[in-house]
Amino acid sequence: MGPDELKGLIRTVPDFPKSGIQFRDITTLLAHGEGLAGSIKQMAAIARSLDADAVAGIEARGFIFGTALALELELGFVPLRKAGKLPVETIGEDYALEYGTARLELDPTLVSDGEKVLLIDDLLATGGTAIAGARLLRRAGAVVEHALFVIDLPELGGARALADETLKTHSVISFEGH
Amino acid sequence: MGPDELKGLIRTVPDFPKSGIQFRDITTLLAHGEGLAGSIKQMAAIARSLDADAVAGIEARGFIFGTALALELELGFVPLRKAGKLPVETIGEDYALEYGTARLELDPTLVSDGEKVLLIDDLLATGGTAIAGARLLRRAGAVVEHALFVIDLPELGGARALADETLKTHSVISFEGH
Repeated sequence: MGPDELKGLIRTVPDFPKSGIQFRDITTLLAHGEGLAGSIKQMAAIARSLDADAVAGIEARGFIFGTALALELELGFVPLRKAGKLPVETIGEDYALEYGTARLELDPTLVSDGEKVLLIDDLLATGGTAIAGARLLRRAGAVVEHALFVIDLPELGGARALADETLKTHSVISFEGH
Repeated sequence: MGPDELKGLIRTVPDFPKSGIQFRDITTLLAHGEGLAGSIKQMAAIARSLDADAVAGIEARGFIFGTALALELELGFVPLRKAGKLPVETIGEDYALEYGTARLELDPTLVSDGEKVLLIDDLLATGGTAIAGARLLRRAGAVVEHALFVIDLPELGGARALADETLKTHSVISFEGH
């Protein structure tokens, strides 16, 4: 199943979470067996050229694609969790939301020094969450050069923001608009 | 990698989230490539005997194992989300936590009438979350007969509570104690 067919399985919900936003909903893609398998195969084809030692995914939708991709690539999966979820000592990075801030946390012992980690999330918008994830992984000693998304919304400038952090952006599907 | 080796990759954190609880932490298993692949293979061997049409997983750690298992079985994945995350009309079930309640939500259009859905989570304790998930899927028309966990804590009585809801419990690993 190619990118255009996968794109057709994504549901667009107007005005969520607020007026003017077209929400790109991946649950309809996930619930479709061939859609799930096809999206992971497309991500794996990109990931195989990027020479990763491990896959990291951002809670919660990055867990969905990240773990399945790690399985497909026969690599380990490192979770980047929301604050307060991990039972051990963590390092954390705050990032801006539209209102206020949120925090991602990582158990730094899950990453080895010099390990090449591929960062995964479902969707790239402005890039704040992915940048926080990359910073955390780098603080733990990982080499993070690439971030891979199912969906990119190029008009929101995420790839430029990631490039400013020396992170290369890859994606399976692009949507115009916000 | 068999159940005993997988068990050896799970980290036990004493006194989290509170004194007296031995927290069974699956992040060390996930971060180990062979551990992740081995746990999914063990789950898939059980799941193949259960004749499922789709896999449902409970946010957030059930997403990790559920999506990878769905990929392995070439089935679709249905997310059972925390309240307020889904962009469409949902049905919800409250369940008791030690202090207060939480709520799981499902988009009922992701499930077909009569579809056999296998329920997945990382760990079975008292069973409240899994029961809420099964009730939601059944309200949406699914046939839910089996719940599959990476870890069971049998002393907490989850399998008995699930049996009272006509749900059969399956797991890869058991730990004594709480």
